[in-house]
Amino acid sequence: MKTLPIGRAFTLIEPGPVVLVTTSDGKTPNVMTISWTMVMDFTPLFAMTTGAWNHSFAALSKSRECVIAIPTVDLIDQVVGVGTCSGADTDKFEKFGLTALKAKHVRAPLIRECLANIECKVIDIVSRHNIVVLEGLAAWRDASRKEKRTLHAVGDGTFVVDGRRIDRRKMMRSKLPAGV
Amino acid sequence: MKTLPIGRAFTLIEPGPVVLVTTSDGKTPNVMTISWTMVMDFTPLFAMTTGAWNHSFAALSKSRECVIAIPTVDLIDQVVGVGTCSGADTDKFEKFGLTALKAKHVRAPLIRECLANIECKVIDIVSRHNIVVLEGLAAWRDASRKEKRTLHAVGDGTFVVDGRRIDRRKMMRSKLPAGV
Repeated sequence: MKTLPIGRAFTLIEPGPVVLVTTSDGKTPNVMTISWTMVMDFTPLFAMTTGAWNHSFAALSKSRECVIAIPTVDLIDQVVGVGTCSGADTDKFEKFGLTALKAKHVRAPLIRECLANIECKVIDIVSRHNIVVLEGLAAWRDASRKEKRTLHAVGDGTFVVDGRRIDRRKMMRSKLPAGV
Repeated sequence: MKTLPIGRAFTLIEPGPVVLVTTSDGKTPNVMTISWTMVMDFTPLFAMTTGAWNHSFAALSKSRECVIAIPTVDLIDQVVGVGTCSGADTDKFEKFGLTALKAKHVRAPLIRECLANIECKVIDIVSRHNIVVLEGLAAWRDASRKEKRTLHAVGDGTFVVDGRRIDRRKMMRSKLPAGV
């Protein structure tokens, strides 16, 4: 994993991919599948909807840290598998063959198999809406990876894979933040 | 536009497409391009990050209503155009050839050229995070439309188009809400 400038990290989340979110309770790392995320700011800030119905929430709210990992299409069965069992009774890293790598700023691990990882700290929890507000601290990208297509959960059990890319950088220049 | 059951409306937003959000100040309709959205609940509830930097925000916060319209790839130049000018000095419906249709529950219009539209009311504004919380009231879908591929903004001036769809309904059955 190589460093991705933190000012570019929002470009991993803005397209709306399904993500894996890792946490650590100080003993065991855990991971959940989340597609309810949103960019809030270029610095970057992210929102994520989660709550006590996810086993990871206890570690997330106690440690105030997590890693958002971006899986690609080749990992679809891990993504679905992680999303359909619970860390309460399963070591999901072991069960799904995911490799936990040490992060730099947080105790939650990076996932080696993913395209990219964003280390985050929890800066607020808006309890009445189950929204967790995250600040990205550092981002990492596996530059050697050939498969870069991410997955978009539709919510009905199907997933849309990234297709072609359209370039409108010239038209949008005035609206883009510096450095992207 | 035909009715889409409201319990399925979250499946329009969950994949993370860039959307057009219409508002009405009682006189002129306006429209903005937003890619910072998130599903919060299947009922459905949505979050959207916006604030006073968008001209639409005044009408949104005063009327407490909007429509989320889902554009497809053929509308990319309208999406980018709407996102790079302001309703303060531009009639964007006229400039970009968008047709405002009367909605059922809100004064903000549907957009006829879009794949789908969700009528929403504002149920909360989390001011400290610029998060607007929306409840979907009714959803509409253009069933006759052949182009169904949506766009995902990367945030750097490029957009990813929907590619192929992968079916994991069987694996996910236990996790899906009723009716999707």
